[in-house]
Formats: sequence, C-alpha cells, structure tokens
Amino acid sequence: MKKTKSKSKSKTKPVSQLRQDIVTGDWVIIATGRSKKPNDFIKEKPQKTDQDSSQSQLENCPFCYPTIEKQKPDTLIYYKKDKEWSLRVFPNKFPALTRKQKTKEYNRGIYLSLDGTGFHEVIVTRDHERGVPQLLKEEVAEVIDSFKTRYLDLMKKRGVKYILFIENHGEKSGASVVHPHWQIFAIPVISPGVRLELEGSKRYQDANKTCVYCDMIEQEIKTKKRIVAKNRSFVAFCPYASRSAFEVWILPRVHQPYFERISETQELEAAAILKKVLERYYHKLNDIPYNMYLHTSPCNGEDYRHYHWHIELLPKTSIWAGFELGTGIEISTIEPQKAAQFLKKS
Amino acid sequence: MKKTKSKSKSKTKPVSQLRQDIVTGDWVIIATGRSKKPNDFIKEKPQKTDQDSSQSQLENCPFCYPTIEKQKPDTLIYYKKDKEWSLRVFPNKFPALTRKQKTKEYNRGIYLSLDGTGFHEVIVTRDHERGVPQLLKEEVAEVIDSFKTRYLDLMKKRGVKYILFIENHGEKSGASVVHPHWQIFAIPVISPGVRLELEGSKRYQDANKTCVYCDMIEQEIKTKKRIVAKNRSFVAFCPYASRSAFEVWILPRVHQPYFERISETQELEAAAILKKVLERYYHKLNDIPYNMYLHTSPCNGEDYRHYHWHIELLPKTSIWAGFELGTGIEISTIEPQKAAQFLKKS
Repeated sequence: MKKTKSKSKSKTKPVSQLRQDIVTGDWVIIATGRSKKPNDFIKEKPQKTDQDSSQSQLENCPFCYPTIEKQKPDTLIYYKKDKEWSLRVFPNKFPALTRKQKTKEYNRGIYLSLDGTGFHEVIVTRDHERGVPQLLKEEVAEVIDSFKTRYLDLMKKRGVKYILFIENHGEKSGASVVHPHWQIFAIPVISPGVRLELEGSKRYQDANKTCVYCDMIEQEIKTKKRIVAKNRSFVAFCPYASRSAFEVWILPRVHQPYFERISETQELEAAAILKKVLERYYHKLNDIPYNMYLHTSPCNGEDYRHYHWHIELLPKTSIWAGFELGTGIEISTIEPQKAAQFLKKS
Repeated sequence: MKKTKSKSKSKTKPVSQLRQDIVTGDWVIIATGRSKKPNDFIKEKPQKTDQDSSQSQLENCPFCYPTIEKQKPDTLIYYKKDKEWSLRVFPNKFPALTRKQKTKEYNRGIYLSLDGTGFHEVIVTRDHERGVPQLLKEEVAEVIDSFKTRYLDLMKKRGVKYILFIENHGEKSGASVVHPHWQIFAIPVISPGVRLELEGSKRYQDANKTCVYCDMIEQEIKTKKRIVAKNRSFVAFCPYASRSAFEVWILPRVHQPYFERISETQELEAAAILKKVLERYYHKLNDIPYNMYLHTSPCNGEDYRHYHWHIELLPKTSIWAGFELGTGIEISTIEPQKAAQFLKKS
C-alpha cells in the first residue's frame, strides 16, 4: 500500500448553485453545468439493462482506464506490490460542485443562493467485475482508508462544511457506471438530513446525558433480534424504524463522533463488517441495488461530541411516490426483525 | 352533481405499525399487512410497460367497475345527470392504515411505536382514458370537491391528526393502476415533511410578521419569470428552490391555512389552474410521470394561522440516489426560470 498525491488546481467557474428553500431552510442544487434543455426531458434516455453483455460494458468502461478516458489527474492513488494501481481517486468529470476560492452568497429578493462550490470526486477500485463482496477484506479497508485520507485533506479546504461518502450500486439505485466506485462530496452547507440527526442526538443527549446511538447499540446487542453482524469494533443491524426493506446501519461500538479518527485496525474491522453485509445483499437478495452513505459530524469547527458516525445502507426496493414525498413517511413492507433474521442466517 | 354517503364500519385489526425514528423524531410505516416474505424481494416483479395494450389494461382495470372488483362500499359517490356515477370514493383494498377505535402506543425499550390506525381511501373518476388534462374543468372541480367533502368527514374521526391527498401518475411515479385515481391518507401523526413547513412558516411569521408563502407569491407575481399560470384565486409557479425539474406549486393567492375552507368558486378556479399545469405536463413533456400532493394545516386542533395550504407537483425526472438520500439535498438539472418559461409558452 503506497500513496502519492497530486494537486489539482481547477479554477473552473461554478457549475451549480445552491438554493435555499425559504420555508424549510433546506438546500437544493441547481446543477446548471449539467443542465439539459427542456426538450431533453421529453425523450426517454435508453435504458441500460442487465442483459447488456458485460464484455461491451468492459470495453466502454470509463473507470477501467481512467487516464485514457481523460479523467482529471488523481488526487490520491494506491499501488499494489507489483506497482500496478489498486485504487484511485480523481475529480468527477461531471461535477455537481466545483472549486472556487470563495463561496459567494446572493440575495434575490426574499430568496438566498450560494455558489455551488466544493469538491466532487470519484473513488474506483481496480477490477471492473469485483465489488465489495468479491474484494478481499484488505482491499475494502483500502477504500475506507481512502475515505479517511481524502477527508483529512478536504476538511482543511476553505468553505467546506460537510463531507459525504456514498456508493450507488445498480442502475435502479442511480448508478450510471457498473464499475465499482464511490463518490465524495465536500459541500459548503450542512445537509438537511444530517442536521436532523445532529439536532435529534443533541436533544437526546441533553435529556438523557447519553448518546442516542450508543443507547440504540446497547439495546440492539441485548435483544439480538435485529443484529445482522458484529465484530470487536462494529455492529450492523436493521434499524427499528427502517425506512426500506433490509435497511442496515453499521456503527462503531465505542462512541465516536468523527469518522476521520478511525484507526488502521478499525478500518479493517469496518471493512470486514461492510463486506459481510454486502455479501448478504449479493447472495441472499440477488445482488439487490442499494445506496450507501456515511454520516459523520460536520467539519465546520463546531462541537458535535453528542453525534456518532455511522454507515447507512438502503436497498432500492420501492419507488418514493406521492405519500412518501408528501409526508416524508416511508412505507416498508417487511418487519426489520424478519429482515435481519433473513440476512443473518447463512 | 349529487352525493350519497354510506358508512363503512370496518373494525379490522391494524395492518401496520407506525414506528418513530428515535434520533430524528420522524415516522415510518411498517406495513405488515402488505408484507412480503423475504424471498419475494429477490425476484423482480414483472414490469408493466407502455407497450401493454390499453385494451387489456381496460379489461383488467379494478377501477372501471369497482363494485364487481369487490371494493369496499363507497364512502362518497357523485352522479351525472343521466344517473350514471361520475366519481366514487372507497376504502383502499390494500390499505397502509386501518380504522381502530383507539391508537395504542407501545414502548419497546427506548423505541416507540403506534398502531397504524387511520383511513386510506381511493378516489376514481369514471373514464379510464381521461385524466385531468382530458377532463372538463367542472369534472376536475368535482375531484377537488370530493377532497373537501372527505376532509370534513375524516377530520372529525378520533385519532386523525393529518389528512393528505395525493396523485401518482405513471408507473415510474409509483402508480400501480393506470385508471386516473387519487388517494386519501388520514393519519395519527403530523408528517415530518409537513412539520418542517409548519415550523419554517412559523419562524418566518415570528420574524417578519407576514406569511412566507404570501411573500413568495408577491415576489413571483412581481418578477413574473417563474410563473406558469394564474387566475383570480390561484397562482402556479416553479419554485425558486425547485427539487425536481419542472416542479410546480399551486397556491391560493389570498392567505388561507385551511384547504377545507375552499369555496365552490375557488374549487372551479383550482380545477382550472391544475388542469392547465397538467395539460402542459401532458402535451409539452410527453405525459411525464409525476407525483402530486396537497399540503394543508393539520387537524389536531392547534393553531396554524401562519400556514398557507398549497399543491405541489413533482415530475419524476430522476432517481434519488446516495447523494440525495445521504444529504436530503436534491439536484435539479434545469433552472426553474427556464422550466417555467418552457411550460408557459403555448
């Protein structure tokens, strides 16, 4: 495992705008840089199907040979012992956010917008055909190590308030490329979804003098029924109020608000448990499409000792329709306990 | 236009459970009554396609002949002059919520759940082939009148705290039946999405002594650029912080927190503007799938004079992936102003 960094000094004009919803305070991104003409929405884009030969996918894969595909220079690269690369991180070719020295604010009457400044990077592992279930534990740990390394670099950048890591797996989950990859977003606001968790865990801490996630872990380990896997440092369970069928959360067992403080040993254990859960999705749920994201404390310099970083895995089992959009209440059709038992048994 | 009501006295055991997310305070529904076995998630359900002959859809349509299809008795029915029915409302055959005298609460260690009590009804108009763009303004007004009539009945029911009206149009938006239909949900909690709007509009009212929606309407009408349509009582525009391409909000121009106070004249004007926007979706965006919902004040007896009821229309133009799920920030790829101009021009 060896790393080299190359600096990317892109000074591109922002490709997007963050606009604040004046009622809720939430943010949206208007990605004008990725923008389509109104007529582009009329025609359906051709759907890639699982029947497309994996051979042709391989030949056209932009992540198998990133340099040939004119990706921007790597921000981080890991090598194998044979000097071949094993993992690389580079700026997204179609970024939702771009770097700029200062994030300007604009008032449009009663409305507020910000330049869409920030960083949007892609992490790819070497093999087109090997996702987390097929990778070695050590290779998955390298992915997690790349999260940490990029976090420590991006958190120092001016204007960055929150850093998010995600994986979209499968076309139905929104993945546009089959090759295993993750995305990093470093954004100039605290995202609404995280804000609710930060506020909720603060409220709980003030009322109970304990961490809500620690209490959850304690109860889950005691009652056992929703546990999917555990090891020395991590626990994985289907949350009591699961939003989607087979949803799984992975949390460090010892209280820790800041993901970037993960140790090398913990990286290996995080890799082992993530691999175990995704093996179950792959083998027991027929390689179900899913979305993964990592929630940690913001890096805006405030105190988040009440928070507890974790990973959330959401299989794509249904469409958000009028009820979910209108209420924010999701309907799940399987009891989390049953989902956990199904995932657990080998 | 003539109405008859028949009382439905279902005392079925709840088919679902509302579970509270202990961190955010949000709710999910675990619909055990609709539940599948774990293995059912493995096989893909056969996808209905637009190529399915509309003839075969017609023959199998559960809403063309609701009585034959063993729907539960109507809770509301409208007749045409020729004594044929024009609109009917009946309980959903696969409800997410069911009636029960009392909503019991359960504590499971640190977690909280409620019986999934409430009402889940379906509204259908007569013609299989005619949706809002094809219906007469008067027929659309009948749909809105049925919303009001059901609202006034359901708001008196024990345990009902919030009533939501939705329409899912097109399979990609989650609609399982092609026949034009709307759904009513009367639920025992205030939904998280609405709570954010209630809190946000209260905050704005306290700070500015005005209604945030009224201020938005004033600015939109003044600047004109995001307006899609307007009439005496209503205005339709693409919101400044649109979450999806071609999103449209329809609001009453005079401040009104409570939808159920809509007058007969306003019903006709709401119908006219809704029809106009949906005609644009149909003709200019190739019958794009969309989700519609109506947000009004809760019916839990508290004071919501700061709120302003409205309709939100969200075309299904993208998949919520890891970034949207992880942050709650949506990415839209067209400027609301351009979307409005495209929708407006004939």
